Amino acid sequence: MKSGLSFLVAARQCEIEVLEQLGRSVELVGAIGSLVHALQRERGLSNGWLGSGGQRFAQELDGQTAQSDEQEGHLRNALAHLIESPHGAPGARLCNRVAWALAGLDALPALRRSIRAQGLSAERATSAYVKLIGALLGVVFEAADEASDPALSRPLVALFNLMQGKEFAGQERACGALAFASGVNDLARQQHWLHLIDSQEQCFRIVAEFASPALLQLWKASLDEAPTAELERLRRIACAALPGATLDGEQSAVWFEVCSQRINAMRRTEVELMRELLTLSQDRLVQARHELQTQHALLARLPGAPAHTPEDFFDRAPLMPTAIGGARSYGVQLQRSILDLVQEQAQRIQAVNDELQTARASLNERKLVERAKGLLMAHRRLSEEDAHKMLRQTAMNQNRRLVDVAESVLAMSEFLPTNEAR
Amino acid sequence: MKSGLSFLVAARQCEIEVLEQLGRSVELVGAIGSLVHALQRERGLSNGWLGSGGQRFAQELDGQTAQSDEQEGHLRNALAHLIESPHGAPGARLCNRVAWALAGLDALPALRRSIRAQGLSAERATSAYVKLIGALLGVVFEAADEASDPALSRPLVALFNLMQGKEFAGQERACGALAFASGVNDLARQQHWLHLIDSQEQCFRIVAEFASPALLQLWKASLDEAPTAELERLRRIACAALPGATLDGEQSAVWFEVCSQRINAMRRTEVELMRELLTLSQDRLVQARHELQTQHALLARLPGAPAHTPEDFFDRAPLMPTAIGGARSYGVQLQRSILDLVQEQAQRIQAVNDELQTARASLNERKLVERAKGLLMAHRRLSEEDAHKMLRQTAMNQNRRLVDVAESVLAMSEFLPTNEAR
Repeated sequence: MKSGLSFLVAARQCEIEVLEQLGRSVELVGAIGSLVHALQRERGLSNGWLGSGGQRFAQELDGQTAQSDEQEGHLRNALAHLIESPHGAPGARLCNRVAWALAGLDALPALRRSIRAQGLSAERATSAYVKLIGALLGVVFEAADEASDPALSRPLVALFNLMQGKEFAGQERACGALAFASGVNDLARQQHWLHLIDSQEQCFRIVAEFASPALLQLWKASLDEAPTAELERLRRIACAALPGATLDGEQSAVWFEVCSQRINAMRRTEVELMRELLTLSQDRLVQARHELQTQHALLARLPGAPAHTPEDFFDRAPLMPTAIGGARSYGVQLQRSILDLVQEQAQRIQAVNDELQTARASLNERKLVERAKGLLMAHRRLSEEDAHKMLRQTAMNQNRRLVDVAESVLAMSEFLPTNEAR
Repeated sequence: MKSGLSFLVAARQCEIEVLEQLGRSVELVGAIGSLVHALQRERGLSNGWLGSGGQRFAQELDGQTAQSDEQEGHLRNALAHLIESPHGAPGARLCNRVAWALAGLDALPALRRSIRAQGLSAERATSAYVKLIGALLGVVFEAADEASDPALSRPLVALFNLMQGKEFAGQERACGALAFASGVNDLARQQHWLHLIDSQEQCFRIVAEFASPALLQLWKASLDEAPTAELERLRRIACAALPGATLDGEQSAVWFEVCSQRINAMRRTEVELMRELLTLSQDRLVQARHELQTQHALLARLPGAPAHTPEDFFDRAPLMPTAIGGARSYGVQLQRSILDLVQEQAQRIQAVNDELQTARASLNERKLVERAKGLLMAHRRLSEEDAHKMLRQTAMNQNRRLVDVAESVLAMSEFLPTNEAR
């Protein structure tokens, strides 16, 4: 026969297990951040190699590939740690994302060989790296989505959006480098460029919403050091140029340098945010273990079961089955009963769930918008940008939020023609 | 170094663990249903004993108490099974609910002694049983809310609402029995009575929405056997009587019998629904284990890693980090790669999440409405019914859904005066 006390303790232990799992996810996210940063540089250098017809960047690319390999090794170690843990694997969705990202990493050596043999265009190489990095960021997204502790869920949401924004900045660097180097911009690339700027800003708005004040200060200070005015000037020159107008090829190197400084500033913030997360996750664990001990000590001091009078339970229990306990004035009562503990725990769990919902809402909105985009891309054969533009235009026309339009699109999905390729 | 294959298998194993945990929750819910049914009868007989000044029902009450004790024993065994499982305890919230319900059961012997000594009124005894049963139903609510498999989540939502509706029917039986026995009804009791009828109907609407067609057929057939016309006639007589009008005391026994037949019909449906749930949960587990084996077999047949060409990954990966893989026509390809498996699994997990959201929406609405009620009760010192009435009236006046009004109330909570008892 099990008493209420053992379930109270079991509830705490559940929370501790969840926090331990979360700590392992945070380590994993750190390893992904380092690998992504290395791959972003590798992507840039690969473009230089391909763009120069194999005349430049051979040595830099060798060095960078070795660095990427080292980071990949760290990530694979963190993954082994994650799956071999005696506490069981993380959730099914996170495992599935990892399987997908590993499939991408397994394909990386062959991609590098093609690049070295100049067997594919710079555009195709860029797109391959974008997809690989996307698969890695998908793991971070899922870790943030599965996190069930708001103290960690909020910074994880900020981190995912920071990493995603940084990736859009990296894509913008590559896009501009190609435009300046080729000496000409066209309408399609200008549109893509503006889309990348817009996407970064969306991500950074969410970072500002979910990051800690300390981190935001660092974020602003870092960006202040970056040559933002110069960046904006070059953006304007390239994106406002009439189609067919000539761009100054000399600006290519300036553009690359300006962008890289800005991306490095983002990386510094990212590293700091990861450090913050790691500390937070360790603190939360220490705190939860301490609370469990306090609870054990309290329970040991309670008289034998039942640790409360029947009046105590029946006065305080609510009539509604989905609520637990009502408020009560303790007065000078020093003897706390199991009911107080259950009630405190229930209120804490409720508060935690409320906070979590807020943090997850932003991830869910992202998911909905991207699913609606995917649907439009599949059924109407649109590019990602055109699908995005269509959603935004509809939202503006109808004066509704983007996520609401996305929901309507998804709700209407059965009325769309089926993709014959399926 | 871990390959994508091991994470694919880990994702399946996660799902299986979740299903096993769910199976244990279903057993627990079955034990709760039996105990609640016994306690509902014990409540009715206790009222008879108290109402007759200790002249009647002594023997029946002895017998029923023994039956309740037996069911309580079964429940405590199921709980021990749940917490001692080597696979870890269920979620923190479920554990907390159980701790609360056990606190109520610990207080039951003292409640029974007070009743036998006629040391409390029938109203107070009724309210104590209502709270105890409410705490037990809270466990069912949480089990339904934590269930992460839609095949089981939907019937669990139906079951919770069936049990909750049956409990309102039990309260209506007690309410009417007292009214007819005392020979008079008053305005407050009429209002309470109408509230109980209304609450039953709300629950049964959700049952109709979430139960399987087979179960709905049984549900309708069972209710057809119950003397519904007679029930409605007695309801009308009692609830439409002018305040102070005399009720025929002879109808008390008729009323009790009519209600009991209806409640027994509900119990038959409840038992069938639990059987359905148990079968479903076993089937899902067999199915998931079979799928894991198939996956193992498929993986064994795949060539050594990487099990796909780089083109395979880079052609199919989406640009968006939160999506996995695009659709592709397999054609006559017999060799399935790990990418196909990851993609299938991702699509299945997505479909599962979509379905779950629907099932949980009804539980969430219930939670919001009850939290808003609790807030109004605490801050405006209203009874539960008055709080409910206030919400409904506002919803009708503003032509909004009840849950939307509840959300507004909760959003406004910080503007309400603080309860000094807190």
